[in-house]
Formats: sequence, structure tokens, C-alpha cells
Amino acid sequence: RQEPDEEEEPVEDPWQDEEYFGSYKTLKLHLEMLSDKSRTEAYRHVIFNNSAALRGKVVMDLGCGTGIISLFCAQLAQPSVVYAVEACSMAAYTRQLVKQNGFEEVVTVLQGRAEEIQLPEKVDVLVSEWMGSCLLFEFMVESVLLARDRWLKEGAVTWPSSAALTLVPCQADGYYAEKMAFWEHPYGLDFTPLQPLARQEFFTKPRFSHLVEPAECLAAPCHVIRLDMYTLQIRDLEVLGRFLFCVERSGIFHEFTAWFTVHFNSMEAEGSAVELDTGPSAEPTHWKRTLFMLDRPVSVCAGDSISGTIVLRRNPVWRRHMNVFLHWSINGSTEDVGTKTFPMWR
Amino acid sequence: RQEPDEEEEPVEDPWQDEEYFGSYKTLKLHLEMLSDKSRTEAYRHVIFNNSAALRGKVVMDLGCGTGIISLFCAQLAQPSVVYAVEACSMAAYTRQLVKQNGFEEVVTVLQGRAEEIQLPEKVDVLVSEWMGSCLLFEFMVESVLLARDRWLKEGAVTWPSSAALTLVPCQADGYYAEKMAFWEHPYGLDFTPLQPLARQEFFTKPRFSHLVEPAECLAAPCHVIRLDMYTLQIRDLEVLGRFLFCVERSGIFHEFTAWFTVHFNSMEAEGSAVELDTGPSAEPTHWKRTLFMLDRPVSVCAGDSISGTIVLRRNPVWRRHMNVFLHWSINGSTEDVGTKTFPMWR
Ligand SMILES: [Ca+2]
Ligand SMILES: [Ca+2]
Repeated sequence: RQEPDEEEEPVEDPWQDEEYFGSYKTLKLHLEMLSDKSRTEAYRHVIFNNSAALRGKVVMDLGCGTGIISLFCAQLAQPSVVYAVEACSMAAYTRQLVKQNGFEEVVTVLQGRAEEIQLPEKVDVLVSEWMGSCLLFEFMVESVLLARDRWLKEGAVTWPSSAALTLVPCQADGYYAEKMAFWEHPYGLDFTPLQPLARQEFFTKPRFSHLVEPAECLAAPCHVIRLDMYTLQIRDLEVLGRFLFCVERSGIFHEFTAWFTVHFNSMEAEGSAVELDTGPSAEPTHWKRTLFMLDRPVSVCAGDSISGTIVLRRNPVWRRHMNVFLHWSINGSTEDVGTKTFPMWR
Repeated sequence: RQEPDEEEEPVEDPWQDEEYFGSYKTLKLHLEMLSDKSRTEAYRHVIFNNSAALRGKVVMDLGCGTGIISLFCAQLAQPSVVYAVEACSMAAYTRQLVKQNGFEEVVTVLQGRAEEIQLPEKVDVLVSEWMGSCLLFEFMVESVLLARDRWLKEGAVTWPSSAALTLVPCQADGYYAEKMAFWEHPYGLDFTPLQPLARQEFFTKPRFSHLVEPAECLAAPCHVIRLDMYTLQIRDLEVLGRFLFCVERSGIFHEFTAWFTVHFNSMEAEGSAVELDTGPSAEPTHWKRTLFMLDRPVSVCAGDSISGTIVLRRNPVWRRHMNVFLHWSINGSTEDVGTKTFPMWR
């Protein structure tokens, strides 16, 4: 980032809070999240599996939205209190839903930002659904870490307890055909002069709404980043991950696909963890998968290796955004290499 | 509209041309239109079917975009010249495509707005793909009418030659369940306090991206508006249409669905017309269908009538937008009636 000088425009709000929280004032996103059964049932299972251990406990549900997780706590367990924290004006409706379901003795809705909210006591459990595209996008996780450090009792539980980002090299014939090969001879005409424009427009940013099929993966997926929600620090959110894939079938390497998995540890020593997997071997979720398209496809053969690094670097100005740097090499060659930076989103 | 006074904000550009033409600078919309086979093949058939009659003729392709229709003229017929008119900066690429396909002797690309463009001569054929959602949305048709009155020779051809808007009452269980019934008991909880918000958010404006199935229609569709492109005047674009449907099966009346059909008359007396039908009995197009959701579903029985009026009234300020007023009555009753105004889009 440049040094500030007199001509630089002031950055009004690098967290774009008005835009970010504003989007949660309408129902669209809430409906999308609530209708996502894998997501919502995962949290429901966590509460249900831990209902005995939650008895009498103090819970904070951070960024509660419509309050679904808090309502699950009241419906399925007997915590002493759940503090349901929501920054946007949806909080007024959340209060109504708590009342409508008869849980106002248990659930207290607090409207405010995680960084500013005051609770009357420290909590035993911090639960939050903070995950975004490619796990970190929008960086709500930073608010969760601040709340964790401020409001958790010694030995408290954090849900999710850990998170991992997974990457896999893929063939994406359909998407490539639709956006790039299309221009080769539509209706018997030559539209290739538009291909550079298409590459710029469709392949510069990652594609969020992609749903890769397992058959499109060219290798076994590989965890590139793992986060422990008990020890993670804000400075650790800029991460470098390494990968080494062994190509399992010959094909066209079009793109890297990324997704995340989170785990919720049991509060009981013998209890089983709950997993929420957003990858291609699980049911599609509203997060879908994130696709990083190469500028040009590469032919690969079974037995080839694809090795390299992924770096997530936060946008220095727009704090909810990041750049994803990918660097890869085929068979460790210094010639058969590629590198590309994807702004996500600015 | 209020009388202007000192406090009224000046309307900078009621046609929002920067926004409107700006959206055509990127490839996304062009790719969507080109990939729409029903749309593009309809124009291709018109040119192909009329190739003999087009020989030596002067053609204007208004709002040519990437120039596909002009290229069809040069590829399939032998016009003396095609003036391909495009207001946005895509025109520079259109010129490249003309050259790439070796048609620069036939196709002349002119960048400019329909209202301002200067042609060296009058034309025999005016072809344009001006149709929007619900036929008229975005009112590009107004530019076509201005160009028609200014640049057409006596007896010239206009493609499309006529257009009709069709309406049908429908049951839409899936969409209603997804947006409204969902809140009744998700995960065993009562979320009905959010239903008024959902009605406001999801049912106030028409839904553009709907794809109604023929089985969802409760009656035979009915043309409510017909436009003759030879005689249509700008003042006629504010239209009142009447409908009378006879319900063919008992069900739930959730919404009216609208779509359009256009016809391209043959230049030859014996030639057959080409039809582009965007309704549920044809292949889906990029226009999809437009859904007007009632605030509350109504039960209807086979044999019931649904009669009423539809009025399209242009937004007095934002000239590309309009309001759609619907008024309906079940069995001609004065009690079993409904009325609703849908802003489209402002
Ligand atoms: Ca989220
Ligand atoms: Ca159009």
C-alpha cells in the first residue's frame, strides 16, 4: 500500500460494515443459509450430541442471524443462558422468533458488533457460523477470535473447533466450453477475437458458485491449510500452504477447486466430533466450491505430479477481502510452471 | 409525479444510459444471448429463409451487440450493405469480428445511439433484437420505433414484424414452498414472524428468472397485448390488456406468468413466417418467464373463471422501467377480487 499523501482518497471504512451487515438485513441470505440442510443440521447435531454437557452452561452465539443455533440450544439442551449476538437490524426479528418459540427465558438477543458487545459474564461455549467462501472470505473469523480472547472462560469450548481448506486440481470441460471454447465457432462463425476479453472477464476472479463433480478431480484432494480455533491468532490468517498432487488419470488441468471442512469437538471425552464437509464427496452446500481457473489449460498424464504453494493474503485496504496466490509446477520442472493471483473480491 | 420544486433532486439521466449501455460492454450478457439457441437460431432462420429476397438490399441491425445478426446476413445472404449499429464500446470488437470473418465489404459497424446515428441512405430492412423481460422491459423498442420512422424506405421490412404478450394463471408450489411456506416450521421451530418480511422481499417485484412448467398452468394461456411493429407508436407502449381464463383443473392459484412471442414475416408473399416463442411449451430461453406472485394464494376449481386487466405503465421518471398493474376477479365476483402493482424494476 502507498504511503498516504494529500491526494489519496480517504478510506472510509475498510471493513465495509455498512455493505456487509446491510446484506444480512434482508431475508435472502438468511433463507439461503437456513435452507442449507448440511450446514444447519451440522449445528443441530452438535447441540443435540452435547445436550447433556450443555446443561447449565453459558453460551454465546456470535453473528446469530435469525438465531437458529441459539434456538437449537434452547430446544434441544438446557443451557442457563444463550447470548445471541447480531450486529445488523435482523436482531429485532430474532427477538421476535425467540419469543414466538417461548424461549425468552433462555435466549437473550444482543444487537451489536462482536468487538463492542458487553456480556454480563464470561461464557463456557462460543458457537458461531463464521465460514465464508474459501473458508476465510469476509473474515468474520477475526471477530470470533476477538470474542474468544475476551469472553471465554478458561477451558471453554469453541465451535467449530478446527477448520481445514482443501485443494484439488480439476478438469472442468463444461465451464471451459461455456466460457472459452464457445467463441471458437459459434454458428459457423469465428468469434476468437473475443477470447482475451472472455479470459479477463470470466477467469480473473475465482468463481464462487461452482459445483465440481468428484469425477472432475484429477488427483486426491489435499488439505493445504489447517486452523485450530483454540490457538489461532489474527496474524495467522495470512497463510502459506503447500501441495503435492499425484495425477491419477490423464486429462486436461483446467483449474484448482477449493473448499473447506470444519470439525466440532465433543464436550465429552468419549463423545464423537461432528464434521461439516463442503467438498465434492458431500452434499452441495450454499458455499458451493471455489474455482480458480488457469489462464490456459494444461495436459497432464497419470503419474505426473502437480506441486506448489497457495498463499492467502488479506487485501491491505479492504479488510474483508483477500488475494489468493497460486504457484504450481508440473513434475517439479522449472519450465512447466504457472503462477496466478486471484483477487477475492477486490 | 410531483411538480419539481427546489428540494427535488435533479434526475440526472432518466434513461440511465450509462448503466444500461455499460452492462453491454462486458461479455456476460452477450454470451448469455449468443448461447440462447432459440433466440439466435430464430434470427438465423429468418435470414436464411429470406436469403433470396435480401440480395442487394440495405439492412440496418439496430443494437447489434457482437454483430451476430449482421454476420448471419453476410454469411447466408447477399445484401448490398448491412449497417450494424451499437451504442456501447463493444462496437470496437464487433468491427474486429466482421474483419475476422472476412465480411468488411458488406457489414459497416457504426458506434452510436439509435437516436443520433447518421446513415448514408435509407434501408430496406430493419432488424433488431429489442425484446426484454415481459416483452417491453428496458424499452429498447422505443429506439427501434424512432429508427423505423427515420430510416426506413417506403414498404421496408421490420423484423420482428409483430409481438404478443401472453399471460396465464399458475400454481407454483415449489417457489411458494421455498420462499413462504418454509418459515412455517423449519427444524421444528416456528419462524412465521418472518413471513411478512418474506412477502415484502420475494413477492413485491416480479420474478424474472422463473421457468414455469406447462403442468403448472391452471388454464389455457391468453394473449393480452399484441403489437404491430409497422404501425406501433411510442404512445401505444402504455397498454391495457384484458383476460378471461377458464380454470381447467382445481388447484392453488399462486401467480400469473407472462412471456412473449414475436413473429418475423417473410419478405416473399408465399414465404412462411418465423416464430420465436418464449413460453412454457417451447425450449427455455435466456428471457425465461416473468412471474407475478399474488400476496396470498387462492383456491380455484375446474370451471371457475379468472377475469381481469393488465396495465403496463412506464415509470414516469425512469424511462426504461415500468409498473405492471394486475386486477383479477374469480367468477366475476365483486368480492373475490385482487389487485396488485408490480414495480419493474423501480
Ligand atoms: Ca457464513
Ligand atoms: Ca434483449
